[in-house]
Order: sequence, then structure tokens, then C-alpha cells
Amino acid sequence: MIATGIVVEYNPFHNGHLYHIKQSKKHTDADVMIAVMSGHFLQRGEPAFIDKWTRTKIALANGADLVIELPYSYATAQASDFAKGGVLLLEALQCDFLSFGSEQGEITPFLDTYKLLEDHNHELQQNVKQLVQSGLSYPQALNTAYQRLIPNNQLTYADLTKPNNILGYHYVEAVQKYHTNVKPITIQRVQAGYHDAIQNGTTIASATGIRQAIQEHHSLQNVSSFLPKATFHALTEWYDEHHHFASWELFWPFLRFSILRLSPKEIASYAEVTEGIEFLIIQAAKECPDFNGFMQKVKSKRYTWTRIQRMLTHIFTNFTWQQLKSSDLPNYIRLLGMTQNGQQYLSERKKLFTLPVISRAASSNDPMLLQDIHATDLYMLALGKNKIGMDYKIPPIRI
Amino acid sequence: MIATGIVVEYNPFHNGHLYHIKQSKKHTDADVMIAVMSGHFLQRGEPAFIDKWTRTKIALANGADLVIELPYSYATAQASDFAKGGVLLLEALQCDFLSFGSEQGEITPFLDTYKLLEDHNHELQQNVKQLVQSGLSYPQALNTAYQRLIPNNQLTYADLTKPNNILGYHYVEAVQKYHTNVKPITIQRVQAGYHDAIQNGTTIASATGIRQAIQEHHSLQNVSSFLPKATFHALTEWYDEHHHFASWELFWPFLRFSILRLSPKEIASYAEVTEGIEFLIIQAAKECPDFNGFMQKVKSKRYTWTRIQRMLTHIFTNFTWQQLKSSDLPNYIRLLGMTQNGQQYLSERKKLFTLPVISRAASSNDPMLLQDIHATDLYMLALGKNKIGMDYKIPPIRI
Repeated sequence: MIATGIVVEYNPFHNGHLYHIKQSKKHTDADVMIAVMSGHFLQRGEPAFIDKWTRTKIALANGADLVIELPYSYATAQASDFAKGGVLLLEALQCDFLSFGSEQGEITPFLDTYKLLEDHNHELQQNVKQLVQSGLSYPQALNTAYQRLIPNNQLTYADLTKPNNILGYHYVEAVQKYHTNVKPITIQRVQAGYHDAIQNGTTIASATGIRQAIQEHHSLQNVSSFLPKATFHALTEWYDEHHHFASWELFWPFLRFSILRLSPKEIASYAEVTEGIEFLIIQAAKECPDFNGFMQKVKSKRYTWTRIQRMLTHIFTNFTWQQLKSSDLPNYIRLLGMTQNGQQYLSERKKLFTLPVISRAASSNDPMLLQDIHATDLYMLALGKNKIGMDYKIPPIRI
Repeated sequence: MIATGIVVEYNPFHNGHLYHIKQSKKHTDADVMIAVMSGHFLQRGEPAFIDKWTRTKIALANGADLVIELPYSYATAQASDFAKGGVLLLEALQCDFLSFGSEQGEITPFLDTYKLLEDHNHELQQNVKQLVQSGLSYPQALNTAYQRLIPNNQLTYADLTKPNNILGYHYVEAVQKYHTNVKPITIQRVQAGYHDAIQNGTTIASATGIRQAIQEHHSLQNVSSFLPKATFHALTEWYDEHHHFASWELFWPFLRFSILRLSPKEIASYAEVTEGIEFLIIQAAKECPDFNGFMQKVKSKRYTWTRIQRMLTHIFTNFTWQQLKSSDLPNYIRLLGMTQNGQQYLSERKKLFTLPVISRAASSNDPMLLQDIHATDLYMLALGKNKIGMDYKIPPIRI
């Protein structure tokens, strides 16, 4: 069986994701598609729009055969650690391919870029450091330093100003750095940019655009053409039950209370919080009754919106620098769901996996798993649900 | 000018409190009445029913001339520290008398009791320790050990099974221990027991009974006969504005979120949390969507309801054992409100005060004051009010 892996958030699953699964399957001739998916907090530092089990169900209905949880410490980390977690889990699962979507659409530029940056790593790091000190955000600094390395008019390198190319680069980096047997390939993204608003007359829109349209109109009507049926039905059911979707705006009373309950020193102990921004975070939380107003006060040239949101995620879930630094390699494979085909793959290959598969959360005390369980509890509380310990109660989804 | 001090919570101010002020004034021939009042969290470990400024206004309208804030670390402490804070502030304010209400109604038994317990202090402590180890709560153990010390049929000692007598004893203890010039006197409490429900045809009921009647009926109708006009009007206004009064039941989503956000080790670091009860607190918070259910699971023979609520208060406000242990003597006099008479007293006596008077919160960085400001912010957030930094904005109330 050929196994192809993808690393996803599905927030929510849309036609672009469906296209990516289909193309990946086709290009790799895959017998089984394995999705490593983030849990309740995502790489942009946000709570997931809907819970991970609902997202698992949708993924299984749309071509994923196995859904594996990307642990919190990778799922909410900067791109290189996010990619590392995903790649190492796919390697442990004996995947033959890793397929990622990119604006670039070809794999060679990523491989060339990796080699260029590896060969000039020292120079690159020096430049990045200097540029960050001069006031650029980390991604800006990295990109500028990278541009300086590219020989004139060499268009064969990846364009690292594009969000999916950046992530793609880090997949390639992780694949090489950890000497995995996973072969990276990339599928060209179609139509919508990462953050673009939805447009009529098309069938593909960005997840950000879809979420915004839903939140603005308090309705799913405008987005149905961008979503597979399974997503549309699941979102409709969710909205009927909860009357809202998860967002920082919704969670703000709890996030704000958590921030204002803590001392500056405690805030500074949370992962990714650096250089005195704790005082700004506290001051803005005092002043702002809504999340957007808060972010307007905290954002700056130095820190991207995403980076700040990741700090907030860690404050919200009580995840410290110390915990971040003690996270290294994944120790287990957490199974969220499977199709019959996925189950067959498990039966055939499980003995070759280099990490144990966890189907029941109660069977492990791994700190990474406990952090996911903890994050679920806080996500549910902030949603206003009296659902604690869901990770212990919900077995892997089967369809 | 003769100054008489009282230590109060006024949660809320009722006819019994009015009676106590009038009798205290009469018995001491006082020219000025000084109330040292708790802020937003109280000795039974509860949020105050209404905010401290509203309670100040009511107190000033009913005979108090100065209202001084009892800092959080005393206001939410066990009886001996609560009394210590109150007594030392009244001493700093140059009070001639301290008048407290008691079931006993005479001061001699308190003085005799103090002498008895002082003379047999070692024996008492040994017995208390042993009884606590055998499973009694601290108050039960103290009372049992005390009973054993009383010579047969000596009725001249204070009955320390009564809640107001216990507090009264600690006032007398603090007066003696800190060699203050304040003279303690006591006024017999009339009619209502501390926790009793309200009864028709009477004009005095306990604050607990009054709060319960208001919460049960969502109305002030049944309690108007127990309240001075100023209280009734203030509560009516408050209810019209907020649609609820502060309580743990109301604050539970935030308290529960705070508990479940923290690790057992962190919970154990909060003041008064001892001996593994952190695990029980977390487990009960997981299971219970309401505060009362939570308390039913956590309470035990060893810990009184009040003690557990104080732990929760400290978890809620992020107040640790370390902070509790570093609190010792009050360093300032925080003025919450004054009548013209009170102002005259301040003008005449301020230079004799042994601590500085703080009228504007911004003028001090004393850790005790910062903790009160912090507690106010969290109280307001949990009430659902977007009112942060009220301590900096509201000047002393004047009537």
C-alpha cells in the first residue's frame, strides 16, 4: 500500500482542501491518505472554528483515511516546529509521500532553496538577527535575509513571501534535517490566496475568508458553494446546537480574565512571550472590552498578528516557555479517526510504526497528550459547554 | 473628639448593623464613628454582594463618618488575621474604642478568656494540633481544646461556639497582643443568628439570610423591612443596572475556568490550600457545572465551607501562600469615604496617625493596595462589567 501524508488544520475543510487531497492521491498513486491534523488550537494562534472530532468526521468523509492529532506543542508553534511535528509523525506512520499545497507548485525550488539556506546558514542567521534588532518581525527578517542570498535573477528558488511556500519550505527542511524516508511533493494551490475574502462565482475560497463570511452574516448561506456537503452539514448542525463558532472574540471574556488575573512576570513565563510585551498585553486587556480592539493595541511592526495570537493561546492554555523547551520529538501517534481503508493500513503496517498508536487517551500520560486534553477542556469551557474530559470519552471516529 | 472604631463587611448593611453603630456611639459617647470595611472579597471567602463604593455610601448614610478599606490579605484571612488588620488600622487612626457585636454582650468574659488562653497557650496549641490530626476542622479543634481548659462550671468565659464571639475574642487578642491603646467594648447582638433565614414580623435579620432571600426571590420585596432606606435604594439601583448580585454562583464560569486552567502544583501554591485538596478541587471543578454542586463535592469534616471558599478566593485572585506569608502589618490607611464630620476628624488628627492616609490609589505602590486593586478588577470582570482600574478612578465618597 502506498501511503501519502498531509499536514492539515481543516478550519474548516473546504473545496480547496478536497482538491488537494484528490490531487495528492492522484500524483502519488496513493492507496491510503493520512492526515496529521491540529487539535483545538491552530498555528495562527487561534481556537479552531469547530472541534477536532467534527473536523475529523468531515476529513474522513472527504478522502482522508486516517486522521492523527498533531500535538498542541507543534500545532501552535512557529512554522518550523509545526512542520517538524507533522513530518516526524508521517515518518513514524511509514508514509511514502508528504504532499503539501504551495503557491510555487513545484518541488525543485524548495529543494534548491533548502540547499542554498543550508550552505549559507551562518550568514543567514547573522543577517536575521541583525534585521530583527533593527525592528523587523521574524518572518520579514528571514525573508529579507533570504532574498540577499539569492544570486541575481535566479528564479529557481522558492518565493518565501507566500505563506504556503514558507510552510512548504519547512516541510522540506524537516524531511532533510531528520533524514526521513518521506518524499515531499507539492500541489499547486488554485485561485484563493491564504487570507482572501470569498468571491462569488468561484468554488474555492480560503478558510479565513469562509470563516469571516460566516461570522459576518451569522449564516452559512454565502459559503455553501465553497464547501463539500459534509462540511456544510456539520457546520449547520454545529451552529444549530451552539449558536456560535469558536473564536477569540467569543473566548475573549475568559482570555481577558486570564490575562488580568496574572502578574507581568507570570505572563512573561508563557511560551513565545518576549521582551516586555507582557506589559503591553496587560495594559491592552485592561482597556479593551473586545478582542479586535485588544489586538489593534498590541500588534506592532516587530510582532506579527499571528505571533501575538500564539502568545495568547499559550496564556489561555497555561503553556510555558519551559514546557515548550522540554517538548522535542513526538512520542506517540494519537488516532482521531479512520475509514475502513485506514483501519486496514493500520492492521498491515502498525508493527512497522516507530511510535505507539494511542486510540484511548486514558492509556497514556505523555505530557504532550495531557496538554491536548487540557486544551480541549479549556476550549469547551470557553465555548460555554459543560464538557470536560472529552478526549477520554470520545473513541476514534470510524466511518 | 472621641473616636470609636468598628470592623465591618456590610454585606449588605442592615438594621442590625444600624443598631450596632447607634449603640456603639451611645456607649462610648463617640463624636466620630470609624468603620474599617472589607473590599470586594470577604472573610467567609466570598465576593461581596455589591461593590465596596456602594457599601461605603450606605455606611456613610447610616452613621459611619469614615470608611477605611481593610486590605485583602486581612479581609479574606482567618479570624485572627482579620481582627489583627482591623485593630491595627483602628489603632493607627487613633481610635479610643473598638466596638464589636457579640452573642456574649459583655466584655469581661472576652478579657478573661484571653488571659486563660494566654496562660495555657502551649497546652492549647498541643491539643489543637492533636485534634486537627484526628480529623476535626480547625475551628472545631480550637473550641474543643478551649472547653477542656475551662474550670468546671466557670460561666464567666466567652462561649466560643458562637461566630461573633469568636471574632470578638480575636479582636481582644489583637488589642492585647499588639499593646494597642484601643479599648474594646462589645454590644449584644439582637435577634438574628449569623446564618439565620429571615423571619416575618421582625426588623433584624442576618446578612446571610437577607442575601439568600434576595437571590431566591429575585426581588428585594421580602427584605425591605430589614434594611435601612439607603441600603434598599442602593440594592434596587444595583439590581436595575446589573440584573444580578455578585456571588460564587455568578462567578463560577470564571472561577471554574481559572481552576481548570491551572496545574495541581499551581493550585497548591495558593494561600490556605493544603494537604492535597488541590486534586479534589480540580476533580470537582471538572465534574460540576454549578458552584453549589462543586462545594458539595469538596467540603469535608476537615475543612469548613468557609475555609474552602477562602482557598477559592485566593485561586480566583491569584493570591499565593508566599504573598500571604509576606503580608504582616498594614502600611497605610486607605480612605474609601467620609462625612463632613469624618473629614473634620481627619483634619484634626491626621498628624497623629501612625500610618499615611491614601485618598488616591495612584499615590501608592504598596503590595497590599495593589492586591486590592487587582481584586477589584477581577470582581468587575466576573460581574460582566467592563470596568477596570476603578480604584484609580473613584475618589473617596463624600456625603
